[in-house]
Amino acid sequence: MRKIDVCLSPALLGLYDLEGRIVVVVDILRATSCMVTAFGHGIRSIIPMADADACLQMRRSGYIVAGERNGKKIDGFDLGNSPFHYIEEDFTGEKLAMTTTNGTVAINSSKQAKEVIIGAFLNISAITEYLKTKTEDILILCAAWKGKVNLEDTLFAGALVNKLKDQCAYECDAPQLAETSWLAAKNDINDYLKTSSHVQRLKNLNIQKDIEYCLTMDEYKLIPFLNGDRIAAKHV
Amino acid sequence: MRKIDVCLSPALLGLYDLEGRIVVVVDILRATSCMVTAFGHGIRSIIPMADADACLQMRRSGYIVAGERNGKKIDGFDLGNSPFHYIEEDFTGEKLAMTTTNGTVAINSSKQAKEVIIGAFLNISAITEYLKTKTEDILILCAAWKGKVNLEDTLFAGALVNKLKDQCAYECDAPQLAETSWLAAKNDINDYLKTSSHVQRLKNLNIQKDIEYCLTMDEYKLIPFLNGDRIAAKHV
Repeated sequence: MRKIDVCLSPALLGLYDLEGRIVVVVDILRATSCMVTAFGHGIRSIIPMADADACLQMRRSGYIVAGERNGKKIDGFDLGNSPFHYIEEDFTGEKLAMTTTNGTVAINSSKQAKEVIIGAFLNISAITEYLKTKTEDILILCAAWKGKVNLEDTLFAGALVNKLKDQCAYECDAPQLAETSWLAAKNDINDYLKTSSHVQRLKNLNIQKDIEYCLTMDEYKLIPFLNGDRIAAKHV
Repeated sequence: MRKIDVCLSPALLGLYDLEGRIVVVVDILRATSCMVTAFGHGIRSIIPMADADACLQMRRSGYIVAGERNGKKIDGFDLGNSPFHYIEEDFTGEKLAMTTTNGTVAINSSKQAKEVIIGAFLNISAITEYLKTKTEDILILCAAWKGKVNLEDTLFAGALVNKLKDQCAYECDAPQLAETSWLAAKNDINDYLKTSSHVQRLKNLNIQKDIEYCLTMDEYKLIPFLNGDRIAAKHV
């Protein structure tokens, strides 16, 4: 039986062998939710970048630049890290360069994998169906918060593990831990997350609307894939 | 309100500031369960050691030497990592030097903390009562399995968080994650753990009796403290 595992923080990624695997990277609040939304609204490609200065320079090459640190838009960037930016404006056909506190770092750490795909609740069923057509082992990589395990990414991991459990054996203990949290939370995710540290941080930034949106299931039928240094989406 | 946090793996310990904190180190299967049992049966002190050769040398200085790697006793050592070794033989007044795959490493990583105490289900109520008399912030450090998060240490963390929740605010998300797993597992811990990777590893070693013992609550009313390079217990 193919295997599934969950890496709860990029700081633990060195413990996992990525070769030959499909890695699903998730940063629910809000990087991967933004990416899925951006592709759902016509963005053509996204370059995830660790360095903010290098990201800002991409504007000269015709890129829209999105930059976030500690939940806030970086001065001088076109966009921050709210999915509504991609809904309220028309970016059809545009290329995006994006740097975020956790999500883009996690994506760039996964490049040795056979495939890297971008996950969010917004496209969880599309991802699930795609993964069911494959035979490779799977690793779900949670972007976490500056290395520390967070609830919302763990919940997503648990939901995806649960959807794939008939096909996959749990490789270590983290899949069961994540699934337990998902089963406890799924009937009222907002309630389960209300004490979460990251949700508290974001509430202080007045983005309750963003949080509710990022917890919405299956708004988009698309799968973003990392291909070299950029992400492009397959619409299904 | 004082704070409580959970570090799910020693590989994440660098993200936590230990200064001024009480750290509770846990390695349910089986290092800290062995230590609590050893103190319950008369062992006077334990030196936790990372290096197996250095540990073995301690025999020349009159120490009983316990050594385990990958769940098995290391050749040449007096004892492995079964709590029954300390029940079936009389070690009253003896000093112990111990090296294990995960637990002793975690203990030695915590030395910057204000206090380091050794936790197991076997002494969880004694620890809880002690912690309630203190005001310092608390970090529960799970020994994990070669850096990867494991269920049994996470369950212990969740149980302790749950016992202290009226006194402590959750500092980040790991306490809630651990508590959720504990609440899901507490009515039948053996059943919850039956798919756990570490339990599977240990079952292959025919030590089901060890596992059941290590999941027993409150066999001992004692608290082992790290003091310099060695652990000694306070009986309460």
